[in-house]
This record gives sequence, structure tokens and C-alpha cells, in this order.
Amino acid sequence: MKRLAILGSTGSIGQSALSIVEQFPERYAVAALAAGRNVDQAFAQVQRWHPQMVSLATEELAGQLAARLREAGVSGIEIVYGTAGTVACSTLAEADFVVSAIVGVAGLEATHAAILAGKPVGLANKECMVAAGEILTRSARERSVPILPIDSEHNAVHQCLRVGSHDEVKTIWLTASGGPFRQTPLKEFAGITPEQALKHPTWVMGRRITIDSATMLNKGLEIIEACRLFDVVPGQVRVTVHPQSTVHSLVEYVDGSIVAQISVTDMRLPILYALAYPERPKSNLTFDLAVLRHLEFEEPDFERFPCLRLAFDAAKKGGAHCIALNAADEVAVEAFLERRIPFLGIPRTIEEVLARTPEAHPETIAEVLAADRDARETARALLYK
Amino acid sequence: MKRLAILGSTGSIGQSALSIVEQFPERYAVAALAAGRNVDQAFAQVQRWHPQMVSLATEELAGQLAARLREAGVSGIEIVYGTAGTVACSTLAEADFVVSAIVGVAGLEATHAAILAGKPVGLANKECMVAAGEILTRSARERSVPILPIDSEHNAVHQCLRVGSHDEVKTIWLTASGGPFRQTPLKEFAGITPEQALKHPTWVMGRRITIDSATMLNKGLEIIEACRLFDVVPGQVRVTVHPQSTVHSLVEYVDGSIVAQISVTDMRLPILYALAYPERPKSNLTFDLAVLRHLEFEEPDFERFPCLRLAFDAAKKGGAHCIALNAADEVAVEAFLERRIPFLGIPRTIEEVLARTPEAHPETIAEVLAADRDARETARALLYK
Repeated sequence: MKRLAILGSTGSIGQSALSIVEQFPERYAVAALAAGRNVDQAFAQVQRWHPQMVSLATEELAGQLAARLREAGVSGIEIVYGTAGTVACSTLAEADFVVSAIVGVAGLEATHAAILAGKPVGLANKECMVAAGEILTRSARERSVPILPIDSEHNAVHQCLRVGSHDEVKTIWLTASGGPFRQTPLKEFAGITPEQALKHPTWVMGRRITIDSATMLNKGLEIIEACRLFDVVPGQVRVTVHPQSTVHSLVEYVDGSIVAQISVTDMRLPILYALAYPERPKSNLTFDLAVLRHLEFEEPDFERFPCLRLAFDAAKKGGAHCIALNAADEVAVEAFLERRIPFLGIPRTIEEVLARTPEAHPETIAEVLAADRDARETARALLYK
Repeated sequence: MKRLAILGSTGSIGQSALSIVEQFPERYAVAALAAGRNVDQAFAQVQRWHPQMVSLATEELAGQLAARLREAGVSGIEIVYGTAGTVACSTLAEADFVVSAIVGVAGLEATHAAILAGKPVGLANKECMVAAGEILTRSARERSVPILPIDSEHNAVHQCLRVGSHDEVKTIWLTASGGPFRQTPLKEFAGITPEQALKHPTWVMGRRITIDSATMLNKGLEIIEACRLFDVVPGQVRVTVHPQSTVHSLVEYVDGSIVAQISVTDMRLPILYALAYPERPKSNLTFDLAVLRHLEFEEPDFERFPCLRLAFDAAKKGGAHCIALNAADEVAVEAFLERRIPFLGIPRTIEEVLARTPEAHPETIAEVLAADRDARETARALLYK
């Protein structure tokens, strides 16, 4: 029985992780939930899963939850809050495995704390790996703590890497759906609205990641994540546009063999893989190959999707540039959704922030968070001046 | 340095194996060559590779080769012949690895002898596994001798099986090009000529295997081979028609993940994989994923390709039925190439031979060869009566 600490339990990945616990009650239980701002949902999750500890974003929200639980006659649950609360969840002695699914750098400290506490991590939060991958992977290596990727591409890569040794890897091919503007002519990009950009062809996701998918910055973050997770250089990572989103990624070996992972587009599958690794439990998430008719692969267009080029450049520089790429994008996406800048303003903002970012390699999480704040300030100064 | 015994050195797989030795002189050398009937080519191979032993089909051919080598001033090479000669090559003390690439059951005794002598085998000869798979795999298990499949589908499966455990395998999906008659209407099958059937859309191969590809009996043999090599039941093996022949096979796991192997259609790649396993040496056999545009997968049509159904039936019965499937097909294909029977006479003959075959499970290679002779006689009696 694995007891899980789920960071970001009320988000989409957190909910999927809980549905896996529901399907495999003989394998998994819930030790701790870090839930953010949604008190109603946190209350329902606590009633359903009886964790030992639950964390909310603020002291006030924690108080509200405590009152609700008292009314409902639920006792014996430790209620904590804020970053310290999330860290308390991720390092809880009774937790055997941490699902890191808080969006953005907010989950960074708790994820690092989990690794330092020797707990295996299922990582759904790509910003953690982009901003602090060098630190997280070093700590994980030093303590022999496995980091199992939960997003579909890196999970696919993790599987495909089992077919050879690290030295035999030539190229990691990340597949990209291409987003809603895969076939949109370049001249129409200037007029793209938030409503158009929020319509993703395959996956239903949060607002920022949907916009990041439309600009392909999301794939850019995944390039950096792949470099860190799998200890490869940016030249070993390539992107192939695969609109069907059924091949989740591929690994090419030096002998010429390419291995690909194919499955339904359902996040429960990579979550189950990460939780159960190295086992594969029987699931109902089957993919009918017999109905698979067409797969397409095309080269990405770096002209229409400049975020890809920016990401490769940042991956090569590493450190502060990766942090700035992610931070500047988050600020720029907000500004785009507020109709303050056009669609092409997103890569333009990132590029300008990167140009103002000094080359640096933060050594601690505090330095990472400081670099993240600096980049956000630079972006805001550019956008809200 | 691995020293190879290559059985079937003058055939297409044998030549490809030698081209791998040529490319990797620091890894491989030639200890023995079993060459069949082509004295000219055997002479050239001996001069080029200086094996310790060479075998030809008959005493007379061996004498011819001995004379040629004397004339050329080449000495110190042991020249043997016949089945005993092939066995001497496959069990040569100085050979570290045996490439089994003699077509048909002719390579069976030497392959089994290699396994009994504890030598790892790269198996290109699918008839061995179809006719005597139960015996070969039992001997290999008892002596912990690896059998590494060299045909592209099973080699792909071998790779994909590294991504999970045996108990986690749900389905092995063998890909099939579909052959030249994939889209031919059923009513035109009666009139198919040898010339039409000998045109294979993707691979250039021998005559029998090309006809077997057109009837899909070849895929049927591979179903049986997969059951034996990978210790699965026929219900765990399925065929998917994939005209591009770039995905060489797939393995579906119980959790819902499917893993596929993709590469150029060049036999040197599976040969290199088998020779180097578990390593993957760098090769120039690269596949450009960026130019990959379309992959198709469709269900095979059991009505137009009755050989597939016959093979699944034989796989379920095992033993003598698998032997008879292969033997009857070989006789029927000869008759078809001689224009003695029509294209659809091939499955009809196999079906009739299978109906006359008693259920039996030969325990020795001699019993296998006897069952093989019986089935050939039954087929000839039907065809040449």
C-alpha cells in the first residue's frame, strides 16, 4: 500500500490522481492533500479520503475548512496552510509518494522538500523542472530518489527509455498537437483572439497551458524539462507535430531504432504509470489500435511558433534564462487574456525579457524564486509601463 | 570480440550479417560459415573472412571448394558438408554466437545443437520456431541461452517487451504490409498469377517468403513464432495491416500503454540488435522521422486471407499442426509457382493437410522432422495425385 501526498489535489491532475486511488484501493491511500483555495472541494475530498493532513492556501481558508469539518463531525485531521503547509504535506512521515501537481513555481519548495526527505515524486508540474531542474535532479541523484514524469510526453519518454541505455539515446522526440493554429497562415497570427486561442483541438486543460499550447511555448517548456529529467543536451531533443496526439513521444537510439509510446489521451494513464512504476497495473484505459487509421508527423514551423526557438535558446543557456522564459510567459499570457497585448506579443515579451536576463545559475530554491520574481517584474515593467 | 557462426551465409540474411561484421570489425569476427550450394560465393566469403570452418550442402561441393582454395593458396580451413557439417559449424567451440539463417527446416538440427551447446542464437529462420519452437525454447530456457529474433517484427517485439514485464503484456501486435493484394477485390483472387504474387510492395525477399507475404501465411507463421519466442498464447497475438512497413510491431500492456518500434526497412538493423544485445552500437541505419507523414493501420481481412485463420487455428493446436501448416504451405507454394494450382489453392491445400494431421506434440527434433515429412507427403499426394 502506497500512501500519497497529493499537492494540488483540487486541480485536474490532483483529481485524476484521486480517481486512480479510487480505482486501486488495494494499492493506494491518501496521506495528505494540499488543496489551494477551493474550500468546498477540499472539504469534499477530506470527507471522502480521510487524509492525515490537509493544507490550504491561507490561514483564513484553513480556518473555514476547520469549521466545516467540525460541523460535519470530522476530527483528527491536521489542517495547515501556505507554503509551509504544502511543505508539511510533501514531507509528512507517513507519505510514501508525492504527486506534485501544483501549477507554477508555487509547488517548487514543497517538491524540493519531498526529494530532500527521500520521497519519490510523480511530477506533473513542469514549471518546477524548468525553473529549478538543475537543483531538483541533483538532489534526487544524491538521494537516489526517483522523479517520475506525469505529463504525457515525458511519461512516454520515460517508458521508451527503458528499451536502451542512456548513452545509446540519440534523440528524444517530443510530440506536439500543434495547437489550434497549426494550419493558420502566419499573416493571420496578429489577429488571434483569446477565445480562438483557448480552443485546444485535443486536450482539455487550464487556461495558461491552453494558451501555451497555442504558442507552442508549452512544448518549449517540455524541451527544457526533458533535458533536465533525462540528462540530455538540448540538441538531443526535437519536436514533431503530431495532430492526432496518440503517439505521446518517441526515443531514437544510436543504432537507428525508434521506440514510440501510444495510448488514449487520458492523464490517468501517466499518473498510474508514475504511481505504480516499475509495475503496470491492469487498467480500463485501453486504446483500440484496430480503429487507428492515420498518424501524421510534421516538422514544427519555427517562424510561426517563435516560442520554440526561444525555448531552445533558453535551454542552451540554462539557469536564469529558463526561469525567465517561464516567468515572462506567464505574465505575457495574462496580459494576452486581458487583451492588453496581441497573440504575437507573447513571444515578443518573452524575447525582450530574455534579452534583459543575465546569465546565471541559481544554486538554491530561494535564488530560483528570486530570479523568477525578477523576470516577472521585468515582464510587467515592459507590459504595464 | 564476438566470433560468429553464420548458418546460411550466402543467403540474404547471411550476407547482411557479414556486412555488419564488415562495419564493426572491432566487435565481430567470423568463426564458421555454412553456405549451402553456391561454391563461388562460399569461396569469395572464405577468402574475405578466413573462417575456421566452412560447410557446404554436399561432399561434392565441399570437394570443389577445397580444390578452389588449394589453387588460391588458402589453407588451414576445415571444410565440412551436409547436416553434420552445419551442426559442426553451429557447435564450433570457437563460435560465441550463431546466426541461424538457413531457410526452412534444414537449419533446425544445427540451431538446436547450438542451443544445446550453450551458444546464443540470432534466429532469422522462422520455420525453426514454427516447427520446433516448443523444443527449442525449452532447451534454451533449461540452459539460459538467449534466442534473439532477427526478423523485423519479432525483433521489434523483443525491443518493445523491455518496457514492461511478461505478466504485464496484453497483446503483441504484429504489423503486416498486407502484401500486393491488400486492396485486391476478393473476386479477383482466383486469377492471381505467380508474376503478380512475386511483386512485394516493400521488402525484396526470396520467392517462397514473397508468396507467403501475398497469402499472409508468412504473418501466420510469425503468429506462431511470437507465441513460442515470447511465451504467450495465440489470443495474445494480433495482426494489424500497416502498408508503410515502418512500425515493425507493437506491444500493448495491461495498463493501456502501447509501445511501438519504428525504423528503416533494412534487415541489418535487427541483425545488429541481435548481435549486440543488450548493447546498441551506433549505426548509419537512421530513419528520418521528420519526413514521416502518414502511418496507417487496418484490421486484416480474414476472408481474403484465410491463411491467417489457418495459422491461428494451428497455433492453438500447436505441435504437429504448426509443422503441417509450414510444410503444406511450402509444397503448395511450389505447386503455385509451377502453375499447378491457383493462388487460392494454397490455403485450400493447407486446410486439407491440416484436416488430415493428427494432434501430436513431437518431443524431439527427429519427431519434428518426421512430422514435417508426413505433412509434405500428404500435401504432395493431394497436389500431384
